[in-house]
Amino acid sequence: MLHNQSFLRTPGPTPIPQQVTHAMNQPMIGHRSQSFAQLFKGTSERLKPIFGTEQPVYTLTSSGTGALEAAVLNVTKPGDEIISVVAGAFGDRFASICEHHQLVTHRIEVPWGESVDQQELISTLHAHPNAKAVVMTYNETSTGVMQPIQELTKIVHDHSYALALVDGVSCIGAVPAQMDEWGIDILVTGSQKAMMLPPGLAFISASERAWDVIEQVDSSSFYFDLKAYHKQYENGMTPYTPAVSLIQGLKEVCTMLEEETLEKVYKRHVVMKDMTRAAFRALGLPLLTSDQDASPTVTAVKATEGLKVDEFRNHVRDRYGLSLAGGQKKLKGEIFRVGHMGYCSPIDVLTTLSIIEMGLVDCGISIELGAGVKAAQEVYINDVSNSSK
Amino acid sequence: MLHNQSFLRTPGPTPIPQQVTHAMNQPMIGHRSQSFAQLFKGTSERLKPIFGTEQPVYTLTSSGTGALEAAVLNVTKPGDEIISVVAGAFGDRFASICEHHQLVTHRIEVPWGESVDQQELISTLHAHPNAKAVVMTYNETSTGVMQPIQELTKIVHDHSYALALVDGVSCIGAVPAQMDEWGIDILVTGSQKAMMLPPGLAFISASERAWDVIEQVDSSSFYFDLKAYHKQYENGMTPYTPAVSLIQGLKEVCTMLEEETLEKVYKRHVVMKDMTRAAFRALGLPLLTSDQDASPTVTAVKATEGLKVDEFRNHVRDRYGLSLAGGQKKLKGEIFRVGHMGYCSPIDVLTTLSIIEMGLVDCGISIELGAGVKAAQEVYINDVSNSSK
Repeated sequence: MLHNQSFLRTPGPTPIPQQVTHAMNQPMIGHRSQSFAQLFKGTSERLKPIFGTEQPVYTLTSSGTGALEAAVLNVTKPGDEIISVVAGAFGDRFASICEHHQLVTHRIEVPWGESVDQQELISTLHAHPNAKAVVMTYNETSTGVMQPIQELTKIVHDHSYALALVDGVSCIGAVPAQMDEWGIDILVTGSQKAMMLPPGLAFISASERAWDVIEQVDSSSFYFDLKAYHKQYENGMTPYTPAVSLIQGLKEVCTMLEEETLEKVYKRHVVMKDMTRAAFRALGLPLLTSDQDASPTVTAVKATEGLKVDEFRNHVRDRYGLSLAGGQKKLKGEIFRVGHMGYCSPIDVLTTLSIIEMGLVDCGISIELGAGVKAAQEVYINDVSNSSK
Repeated sequence: MLHNQSFLRTPGPTPIPQQVTHAMNQPMIGHRSQSFAQLFKGTSERLKPIFGTEQPVYTLTSSGTGALEAAVLNVTKPGDEIISVVAGAFGDRFASICEHHQLVTHRIEVPWGESVDQQELISTLHAHPNAKAVVMTYNETSTGVMQPIQELTKIVHDHSYALALVDGVSCIGAVPAQMDEWGIDILVTGSQKAMMLPPGLAFISASERAWDVIEQVDSSSFYFDLKAYHKQYENGMTPYTPAVSLIQGLKEVCTMLEEETLEKVYKRHVVMKDMTRAAFRALGLPLLTSDQDASPTVTAVKATEGLKVDEFRNHVRDRYGLSLAGGQKKLKGEIFRVGHMGYCSPIDVLTTLSIIEMGLVDCGISIELGAGVKAAQEVYINDVSNSSK
């Protein structure tokens, strides 16, 4: 293949736009300088519409997991009860963080590939009326399920006094989020998914209701104590040295999202999801999730008969430079996952699908070359003609 | 001034070499890919000589503060006794982390600008024989004092059973470190100082003795639990998504340090320190620290009569593009600090000094233009002629 040509279609990290790389190449600046404060005040303000909040959005230098831990530790103390919706590997991680901190964690185990049964959530809330918080995953990266987080958050508030803590790592920036309107109490995301940056930053915001709790809790983390971030927020600074170059890139990301408009960004992701699903249906490969549960950012495809998914993934990587993700934990070897988020267009989806088709044929799977691409093209053409009406 | 020309001479962040920027511009790769594992195994291995250890050196995605918290939390539990040597703002932060986690923290308060009195350390060790650890700062960024960490570590082990935990954030990579030989139990540094990278990574290593404790402790952090990092270390991976682009840059940093050789890197920093101190002496500006305590990476200069240091710093920034640091906490307004570490050469020091001289004259301070530069040149010439013998 063309030397070093690569197509990164894992559900994070995702490709970095050249404009963002360029922004990150600016000379380093001190994190206590006026230049940094001006930069950071701007990026912090511009994250608010992406979260759908009027509350401050704090920037942490960590992976998304660090921010999930921040969410938990800032509103709980050991022994508190928590309800955890576990619909995949990242729901499991969120629950594990709670358990690590000696929270009494009531897990709702959801079959991987599905979203939570709303009746079960209601009955769990009634069964544990002292639960301090419900931790949920908006978009479960490991299965390609997007849960109806607006509805779930409403259920939490209608049936309990618990805070709704939401992991939005693999979708915020690609799908609508109305943190304030929906009543999400803490929302978290990372830089390396829909936010088109390298990994290294996480973003977190908390509702007024959450802040009432945060102010009463002595966070058992020093580095992730949101009170310290809030104290520096108005100065346009962070309590500890932040990943300055990524914040330089973030400014450009905000510009790109604003220029496209969030509405069109969200629509683009839906189209890419529809294209991907139409393609695999046309090729006869089974999808893990229902249309209703399907994530706009990542699609999980089940191994069709005779397909060894990890050999297939290695093949398309080595032969064509395409990186796909495999299954995690209980889905290992059962699925492969195609990312279509962040710096990814419908045309990139066609490229991805055309490589996947060749890879399947190379691996001896009987499909019709071009059939998936064609189905995806039809979705795209139809969307373009709808959009221009 | 020339548009956007800037001279970043704060004691971190420090300038990024163009080769490193170039390395960070490579296409993003997945953190669960073979390419990443190969990259990360290499950088992890190449950090060992910089730490002076045969133990694994773990890479965290956080600021240095996060790694200091990791050091504390992995070897203690609430109620444990700790001795903390506080010789400046970062010693204070290390102690504050201990106090935040309900450790019984015995602070040795050292006058800012000095290193700890060794007799006082000995008597404190004897007064608190149950101390689980002694936390110390190798290079106190806020004062420009480098403590004799080899001697201090020996004292800790000669007079106690405590572990020696060392903050090396603002010096490791610029000064010798023999973690194993000196008996340092946990050593920590950050990416944005002598390591010539943007902020966002921290590096941490633990002795076998420390690991005996770590394995007994349920870390009260999830994100900073070293056992999780160790578990992934042999696979060339990290437990949570790391700051991939910075690790791509780290590979180039390792190459640069190896090509110069660590011995010459350390010598370069000593020469830059000697040049800087000779210059301020020639200009008649008082230095905060004694020659014996002086740091090879940062020099603190006291306000001479009539000098308003923060106005002076703003002036050289706005007029000449030179960023210097001010005093922190109790030294605010009393000193300015000149960084000379990482991607900084003796020639860069001459540039810095020549700007400082002009800035002093602009601010009405009576000095002889060129006198500081001359003194620094003499140190450098003398060193070059010594080195070539």
